[in-house]
Amino acid sequence: MAVPPSTYPRHLLPLFLGLFQGTLLLFFALFVTYDEPSAQAEDANLVANQVYSTFPFFQDIQVMLVVGLGLLLTFLPIYGLSALTHNFLLLNFSTQWALVLQGLFHHFHHGQIHLDLHKLLISEFAAVTVLISVGAILGRASPCQLLVMATCEIPIYLASEWVIVTCLGVLDVGGTITIHAFSCYFGLGVSKALFRATQQPLHPKETPTPSSDLMSLVGTLILWVFWPSFVAVLCQPGDAQHRAILNTLLAMSASAITAVVASSLLHRDGKLSPGHLQNGSLAGGVAIGVVADMAMPPVAALALGSLSAVLCVLGFRFLTPLLRKKLTLHDQCGIHNLHGLPGILGAAASVVAVLMASKDASGSQPSQLSPVGGNASEVVGGRGAGGQALCQAAGLAVAVGASLLAGLLTGAALRLPCLARPPERLCFDDSQYFKIQDQAERPKPGSSAEEGALALKE
Amino acid sequence: MAVPPSTYPRHLLPLFLGLFQGTLLLFFALFVTYDEPSAQAEDANLVANQVYSTFPFFQDIQVMLVVGLGLLLTFLPIYGLSALTHNFLLLNFSTQWALVLQGLFHHFHHGQIHLDLHKLLISEFAAVTVLISVGAILGRASPCQLLVMATCEIPIYLASEWVIVTCLGVLDVGGTITIHAFSCYFGLGVSKALFRATQQPLHPKETPTPSSDLMSLVGTLILWVFWPSFVAVLCQPGDAQHRAILNTLLAMSASAITAVVASSLLHRDGKLSPGHLQNGSLAGGVAIGVVADMAMPPVAALALGSLSAVLCVLGFRFLTPLLRKKLTLHDQCGIHNLHGLPGILGAAASVVAVLMASKDASGSQPSQLSPVGGNASEVVGGRGAGGQALCQAAGLAVAVGASLLAGLLTGAALRLPCLARPPERLCFDDSQYFKIQDQAERPKPGSSAEEGALALKE
Amino acid sequence: MAVPPSTYPRHLLPLFLGLFQGTLLLFFALFVTYDEPSAQAEDANLVANQVYSTFPFFQDIQVMLVVGLGLLLTFLPIYGLSALTHNFLLLNFSTQWALVLQGLFHHFHHGQIHLDLHKLLISEFAAVTVLISVGAILGRASPCQLLVMATCEIPIYLASEWVIVTCLGVLDVGGTITIHAFSCYFGLGVSKALFRATQQPLHPKETPTPSSDLMSLVGTLILWVFWPSFVAVLCQPGDAQHRAILNTLLAMSASAITAVVASSLLHRDGKLSPGHLQNGSLAGGVAIGVVADMAMPPVAALALGSLSAVLCVLGFRFLTPLLRKKLTLHDQCGIHNLHGLPGILGAAASVVAVLMASKDASGSQPSQLSPVGGNASEVVGGRGAGGQALCQAAGLAVAVGASLLAGLLTGAALRLPCLARPPERLCFDDSQYFKIQDQAERPKPGSSAEEGALALKE
Repeated sequence: MAVPPSTYPRHLLPLFLGLFQGTLLLFFALFVTYDEPSAQAEDANLVANQVYSTFPFFQDIQVMLVVGLGLLLTFLPIYGLSALTHNFLLLNFSTQWALVLQGLFHHFHHGQIHLDLHKLLISEFAAVTVLISVGAILGRASPCQLLVMATCEIPIYLASEWVIVTCLGVLDVGGTITIHAFSCYFGLGVSKALFRATQQPLHPKETPTPSSDLMSLVGTLILWVFWPSFVAVLCQPGDAQHRAILNTLLAMSASAITAVVASSLLHRDGKLSPGHLQNGSLAGGVAIGVVADMAMPPVAALALGSLSAVLCVLGFRFLTPLLRKKLTLHDQCGIHNLHGLPGILGAAASVVAVLMASKDASGSQPSQLSPVGGNASEVVGGRGAGGQALCQAAGLAVAVGASLLAGLLTGAALRLPCLARPPERLCFDDSQYFKIQDQAERPKPGSSAEEGALALKE
Repeated sequence: MAVPPSTYPRHLLPLFLGLFQGTLLLFFALFVTYDEPSAQAEDANLVANQVYSTFPFFQDIQVMLVVGLGLLLTFLPIYGLSALTHNFLLLNFSTQWALVLQGLFHHFHHGQIHLDLHKLLISEFAAVTVLISVGAILGRASPCQLLVMATCEIPIYLASEWVIVTCLGVLDVGGTITIHAFSCYFGLGVSKALFRATQQPLHPKETPTPSSDLMSLVGTLILWVFWPSFVAVLCQPGDAQHRAILNTLLAMSASAITAVVASSLLHRDGKLSPGHLQNGSLAGGVAIGVVADMAMPPVAALALGSLSAVLCVLGFRFLTPLLRKKLTLHDQCGIHNLHGLPGILGAAASVVAVLMASKDASGSQPSQLSPVGGNASEVVGGRGAGGQALCQAAGLAVAVGASLLAGLLTGAALRLPCLARPPERLCFDDSQYFKIQDQAERPKPGSSAEEGALALKE
Repeated sequence: MAVPPSTYPRHLLPLFLGLFQGTLLLFFALFVTYDEPSAQAEDANLVANQVYSTFPFFQDIQVMLVVGLGLLLTFLPIYGLSALTHNFLLLNFSTQWALVLQGLFHHFHHGQIHLDLHKLLISEFAAVTVLISVGAILGRASPCQLLVMATCEIPIYLASEWVIVTCLGVLDVGGTITIHAFSCYFGLGVSKALFRATQQPLHPKETPTPSSDLMSLVGTLILWVFWPSFVAVLCQPGDAQHRAILNTLLAMSASAITAVVASSLLHRDGKLSPGHLQNGSLAGGVAIGVVADMAMPPVAALALGSLSAVLCVLGFRFLTPLLRKKLTLHDQCGIHNLHGLPGILGAAASVVAVLMASKDASGSQPSQLSPVGGNASEVVGGRGAGGQALCQAAGLAVAVGASLLAGLLTGAALRLPCLARPPERLCFDDSQYFKIQDQAERPKPGSSAEEGALALKE
């Protein structure tokens, strides 16, 4: 055995998960059904069309979260299996948990919850917040801690999303504020409370190898390709969705090029950092989400994409070391650079866009009151552009404030003795969580076949 | 040359394949055409809509079979190229072969076979059986043997599918019985007859490395993401398809979590087996196929997913070693655990679902006779729930019985001297089938460029 | 530092890219807008349907170009990060550049360019030519040279495409002539002019390893799966698109099998070359593009697929070494075998198809004049089959001639002193373009954490 047995409570994970799965079954048995089949042919046609229009987007998003994000996290060279598995596990756990909570909170009509693809999608969006937050403490936390973190984060996200979108009427079709900014500061809060003032030393297994960087870059590219689906899936079909797709494509394209420029300029010899590319290429997608379906010229999408890539790369180069040094804030994957800074930038852009859209609308088309920015202008219509702009800013404040506070509390809870973190020397190592056949232990060709076979299968 | 030349008949493969491709060309030239172009604008619109509704599903399935399944099989550390290539080759060969046979058997109207996307899809489903069965003997059989196996399996599958679906009227939209159970027992039959009573010793190249396990897990995740498309593609558009997608998503989500629980509980130190995850996460998808579009509560999908993951993991831990020991049955990829046990479980679930659906229908809605379970209740309507339940069980019996018998015969045929297996020491090694530049042979920087270049290109 | 600092002008890349991105912003600010939102509900519905019918194809093509093609190029064992990144960068740069040029040349109505998904798609098609051409000089050219090459190639492609499709009326729905043949000979021209008469010695880092071959094969499989989307996206919806999908599927399936046959027959011991598979499996897709939507029997698609795979494999075995020896023509990825030969074959097939289609139309259905081959027969109707056949041949001649000439000129421009190529010993090495942590440099567990952390982040 390469790694000595640790004192870490190993059967907590299956216990916790098993209990959760049991509760879920009970909850579903009592409260969840499908919609009644449509009695009318027209209704059936409608359902079919809904499936055709939503399902390809849904599948794209699944690929992003399961394969793309999973691979992105495999930059730790001997932690790939764990990163991929924990990401996958957390996605499933959090989606189910969000489904339960949403059922309880929002859809409790007539004692029955009617499940459909749209509700699953909304729950998956909630799960995304967990997958992002986890990046702050990747490799140094046990799966149990991650699950407890997910358990806390999902209800807080749902509450915060309800305040931001339903109460404040914030426009945020791509989740820039509600998902990205929220989850970033939640993750940082957890990290701060979990690690407190102790500097996390650089672990020798933390440094990516060229081959782990390559896998991670493939993950980035998968995320990059499917990002427009993530932003556009909840848009109004038609013009708004079309515009959201185009804006996202433009922003991400600008992001990709600008990340190369920025990374290259920051190195004396003009070389690129794989980490800058892996994150910077996606920053535009984070920032554009909140304004993607608004009425704004294409150049704004390009500018936003470029600017967020610059911010992200600068963040990696200057802000992360600074936060680490001054605030002893540990951010393993640099989520503050990929989700925090572009999230704030996007929120700021949405303030400008709302103000500009109303000016355009009143300027160029004084007689025609409504359909300039789809959703945007309708809401704006109701409360005035200034009010809406204020709401966007308030939404960001709520997301950041609530998540930071909740994250700190959650991080404190993760310090409970029963959730012991793995000891430092066992961090970033798959052999802590996986049965890995040791090279030396492998049966030689001449060894007894049957014993070897049984040993392997166990 | 790292590997000495073996006596294995090397030119059989291109000969066999070349002959097949030639015959196929002849067959297509004589009998296959496309549909006449639609004369009416309405018809053209109909075709366009059919393409839009089927093609995304079709592409998802192609990704599953070519990339997902291919990567899943790369867990053998130095057999990745072969596993990926053989999987790819068999998919193409089997699809074409199924296209020919289906043409001959089913579609021989007016001397012409009209090819369309739907017929291609059906042929690809037939090819899936081969890709699954091959898992039982992966790495120890030559490509020629695999092709002969495919040649035998496709017609038997088509016949068995015809008996099960058309004659017995078994409901099996996701292929749990017709594809998974069938192909599992066919593969086991082949394995038994091919290896007979000789224990296959554990080969030193058989043990996965962390990096080959990672690639394999990526394959699993790709399969996991696109599985709903596989189950739902042939469903009635509308409610039934929507329900099939949701049921599959729920089952697979439960499967993923339960596989972690089960694998962790089975190890003294709570660690996970990569193999358990790679297979257990998918078990729910296998089991749900047969009931996916039936009228059943969502909790049933969750329960079925959990149960099948438990069965799959227990199978790996206890049943595979037992079968190996007692029956000297060799199952390289554990197809019995991923396709056999969940297949049987799914079939059992379909019996229950049919009985329950009819009870519900007669109980809660006595006046309304038909549209509770889509397809399901219509058939049930015709023959009574008991009869249908019996048919489901009979379908499983036919699938298992026919495939086991046919597999044993096929396996015996694979022992023909002209199809010699590779010698044991050359198994599980890409260099047996691929020109691989030896590290030591590689030209040094100083060597003559032109010679080196030519040597490489050959 | 593993690699000593070279004299290569390192800050040219960010400068060039930054300037380009700035100009693009200006151009977009001045000239590009979105379509006005649809005022009518019907129009909105139309836009929604256009999105649903185009976007899945668009995403498939993005996966092909970003992930599939990127991975295909990672066959160079320690050049994977660079290959993936340069491919990604060039795709974004070229798409944006094509968008600008197309805007200027074609869409300059009323001073405003209306951006939509279709225009983005057309620009991406233009970018594909760059990604293909680059294959001829992969690994030996600097990113700056590649960008200059893209800058030259895009306008020449747009002009040549305009001549071929708009002026000559060549039918080429899948880009066989306009994209594949064009980009191949452009790339070869660049290579010839760049390397002149000097033999490029075989570089020790040029030889693929089994693991880099595996990644590359995964790339091939991704391209193989999504190729039908590439060919069919611009087809007339309905029958023509359906036929294009089917023809492409058949051609690629035949290609995959025939590539195995051909590769196996060429080796004395029957083994396969990974390179033959990686390219031969895709040759059918290149060749079928030009005839995919024409009225021809399915057997023609199969035959074309087989033939092009044979040509491709023979090209790798005999033609590439010959060209290298006799013409000192360097073709790193063998683009002449994958894009050149099948491109010419496809063009020839289109001549035959046009002639046959007209014969069929006049023979079997004398009364019905038009709708046999969709687009094809309409054009044919106008100018007669012979004239159209001539046009197809002329189109190929234009594509090959123009691209070869322009490639030679571009290649000469790449020899400008300010664009210095990396020195030979630094070719094919990621450490030339990426900050890669040296194994020896990595901080040991005992080293000062903070210093190490900061060192890493820089």
